Amino acid sequence: MSKNLTKRSEDYSKWYNELVVKADLAENSAVRGCMVIKPYGYAIWEKMQAELDRKFKETGHQNAYFPLFVPKSLFEAEEKNAEGFAKECAVVTHYRLKTDPEDASKLIVDPNAKLEEELIVRPTSEAIIWNTYKGWIQSYRDLPLLINQWANVVRWEMRTRLFLRTAEFLWQEGHTAHSTRNEAIAETEQMNNVYADFAENFMAIPVIKGRKTESERFAGAEDTYCIEALMQDGKALQAGTSHFLGQNFAKAFDVKFTSKEGKQDYVWATSWGVSTRLMGALIMTHSDDNGLVLPPNLAPIQVVIVPIYKGEDQLHQISEVANELVVDLRARGISVKFDNRDTHRPGAKFAQYELQGVPLRVAIGPKDLEKGTVELARRDTLSKQFVAKDQVVETIDSLLKEIQDSLHKKATDFRDDHITEVNTFEEFKEVLENKGGFISAHWDGTEETEQKIKELTKATIRCIPFDAKEEKGNCVYTGNPSEIRVLFAKAY
Amino acid sequence: MSKNLTKRSEDYSKWYNELVVKADLAENSAVRGCMVIKPYGYAIWEKMQAELDRKFKETGHQNAYFPLFVPKSLFEAEEKNAEGFAKECAVVTHYRLKTDPEDASKLIVDPNAKLEEELIVRPTSEAIIWNTYKGWIQSYRDLPLLINQWANVVRWEMRTRLFLRTAEFLWQEGHTAHSTRNEAIAETEQMNNVYADFAENFMAIPVIKGRKTESERFAGAEDTYCIEALMQDGKALQAGTSHFLGQNFAKAFDVKFTSKEGKQDYVWATSWGVSTRLMGALIMTHSDDNGLVLPPNLAPIQVVIVPIYKGEDQLHQISEVANELVVDLRARGISVKFDNRDTHRPGAKFAQYELQGVPLRVAIGPKDLEKGTVELARRDTLSKQFVAKDQVVETIDSLLKEIQDSLHKKATDFRDDHITEVNTFEEFKEVLENKGGFISAHWDGTEETEQKIKELTKATIRCIPFDAKEEKGNCVYTGNPSEIRVLFAKAY
Repeated sequence: MSKNLTKRSEDYSKWYNELVVKADLAENSAVRGCMVIKPYGYAIWEKMQAELDRKFKETGHQNAYFPLFVPKSLFEAEEKNAEGFAKECAVVTHYRLKTDPEDASKLIVDPNAKLEEELIVRPTSEAIIWNTYKGWIQSYRDLPLLINQWANVVRWEMRTRLFLRTAEFLWQEGHTAHSTRNEAIAETEQMNNVYADFAENFMAIPVIKGRKTESERFAGAEDTYCIEALMQDGKALQAGTSHFLGQNFAKAFDVKFTSKEGKQDYVWATSWGVSTRLMGALIMTHSDDNGLVLPPNLAPIQVVIVPIYKGEDQLHQISEVANELVVDLRARGISVKFDNRDTHRPGAKFAQYELQGVPLRVAIGPKDLEKGTVELARRDTLSKQFVAKDQVVETIDSLLKEIQDSLHKKATDFRDDHITEVNTFEEFKEVLENKGGFISAHWDGTEETEQKIKELTKATIRCIPFDAKEEKGNCVYTGNPSEIRVLFAKAY
Repeated sequence: MSKNLTKRSEDYSKWYNELVVKADLAENSAVRGCMVIKPYGYAIWEKMQAELDRKFKETGHQNAYFPLFVPKSLFEAEEKNAEGFAKECAVVTHYRLKTDPEDASKLIVDPNAKLEEELIVRPTSEAIIWNTYKGWIQSYRDLPLLINQWANVVRWEMRTRLFLRTAEFLWQEGHTAHSTRNEAIAETEQMNNVYADFAENFMAIPVIKGRKTESERFAGAEDTYCIEALMQDGKALQAGTSHFLGQNFAKAFDVKFTSKEGKQDYVWATSWGVSTRLMGALIMTHSDDNGLVLPPNLAPIQVVIVPIYKGEDQLHQISEVANELVVDLRARGISVKFDNRDTHRPGAKFAQYELQGVPLRVAIGPKDLEKGTVELARRDTLSKQFVAKDQVVETIDSLLKEIQDSLHKKATDFRDDHITEVNTFEEFKEVLENKGGFISAHWDGTEETEQKIKELTKATIRCIPFDAKEEKGNCVYTGNPSEIRVLFAKAY
């Protein structure tokens, strides 16, 4: 069953691009760098959203909505943040079009409708939100303020790729305000842990939790925590970040509170976000040369039933069995589709669901009717088995759990196999070139060395892992003393 | 308990603006005409979204996501649509800021980063979506295409009001494609019915279903259906619209399909939407001089429990009763909050929940402990009763249903009382001036008369109701013959 998908070993990048389009996840649009998320892809994103939203609410956060636009004067208030995003932001300058006097079928920007102040399409919302928080926070009683927003943001990236890097993307951004430094740091940690838990236990994606170096920090943050995942081609992918913003935004927007003791102080802040980029991480963690592989938690369709029949009579008999199975599976909260379309042959259906990563496929043919069985096929292992009709619901239920666990284990094994400790720069380059993955190496802690290594190898410090053991050593590049190993990798 | 809310009878508009802000629903932002939807307001919107989304999926629709931006050349492709929105659209012209050479602390638009083609921030997405559908539709097998999008849109309105008319608002927009005219018309009707059902049975807002006149149609539609609600001040509010777009967009974007018979034809289209404007309808249908009144279906908190105590001991005893009640209510799917904050007095809590429209309030004091009762207060009627502890869950459960029904009935009675049949223009003006509401009158069917009446009275034709009885008569303004009564009103 060829889906004409390029093999990963031939061209991983091409494989990814083809898969995204052929599995009906997303496609490029008429707007440079902006994607259309197709219904099947969006259904997966909705599952991520629902679970994340539940986790945010469980940890005391509420959703709200802030404007799409940031007036330029607010945008530039926090200097580092502004500097970080100024080079890639879409700017609204006018608020009206008019008929082109030279061609009545065309429209032109109306020069008389120029905005007094330009509006930036939000690349992130700290500025507009902290300007709002100023009106919401007076006293310690107003704190903590724990708010999340689901929104679209725009960053005018020059090189874009579906899900991984797009000019517009969907995300959630949490923005919290606290009365103490420690509480804000605890929140930053908590949300990084929420992301890690979500990635590992819901998406079956193993991640390493750590801290970014200064040069990789969010613009305007004092500290950036992150979760880093490893893709099958040995490149790392930053899957989520949580920032401790210190009092930077509170100072930029003059947000003070009165403490219990009656003292005035600036508020402490965090922000944290994950985006549709997670779709890219999902695809590149689990999928194979036959197409998408989805953990059952994220599959819009967990089980598909395909009838194999000749003539109406057989279809009728098979449908009876299938419909009963549909009812029983739904009663267990399993999402199932009975594909009885007569416009497509079973082979074409098999190919489609394999490409789209449906975790389990049930096929029912005339021989199954005779024997009282169905054929059950796993998408992840491509293995098949015959199961007695009265055991199929139980089997499916336990297989879905098994697949979820198995995908996590497989990805974790791969990731663990691709963390290599190196002690010389030769080794560093050799591993990076031939094996890829994370390279655990000593670093002297200077930005200069970090930049130099990046220039020479394209590898960056993905994070300083929280669980790194302290160990005296020498920087892999300069030989200067180092206290800790950090993780390098090439990254998306 | 004064919340310093202006009375509706004094200044309805002021009452509305104050209520929105004081009940913590929304506020104006630093961006002209754009609002911040606060957590409490957003929680209500989330309830609307969840129910609508369920209804859309139940009727076979899937969600997807299309770009925020529309290139100008696509925007202008459907002429009437472009003409309708050109005067109020935000235009992105540049993609970068740079440091102001005259003041290094400021940013300016980088003149070297001008877009080759301007991008319109979507005021509605027909253009970008139909340009995409061109690639998705080849044959009748690809139809119907039933897609919905939850998104933000921007219309540069000059006079804005929180929820009712804002430069940016949140909405859903359905965009469907069909192989026949009749099927598209049936979809247009179905979705208008979905909206009506949602308004009536979920929001407790009575609506009249009908068709817009040509001058009130969506730009680019062949027919616009709508649901019209009546606010307490006698003004109508368009709560949702569903458009039959004919083949207009298919022709503008060259979207053809091959029929079963092998014939090529343009695709038939619909689009339909409701927005955060529904929040305005909700507020102005049910609320009173004491603040917000929420139908239980839409209340983020359906029941609040307030302890009335002196000292830790009493609080402890009351908390036991309260916590048990919380568990029992949650087990029934009722959302409940036990407000045991010691920073606020019971009176202040009562005032807050009254202002925020929590449907039921339970107060538990020392006397209740003695008697084994609680005090139960309804927000809608402000009536109170004592209920035995072992009956309180049942009572709350049935009261929530009763409140939902009662609000719907009250609003329906008000609306029905404010539909007045008139036969002369004097009567028309008199009713409009002194009573308001819908005026059912004969109209000669010309745009000229419609405009004249609007100029003279500010009343517009809200709709030609689907259930209007045919009746020969004479136009209330020109005296020309008419076959049907239409509904006029002043409108939001």
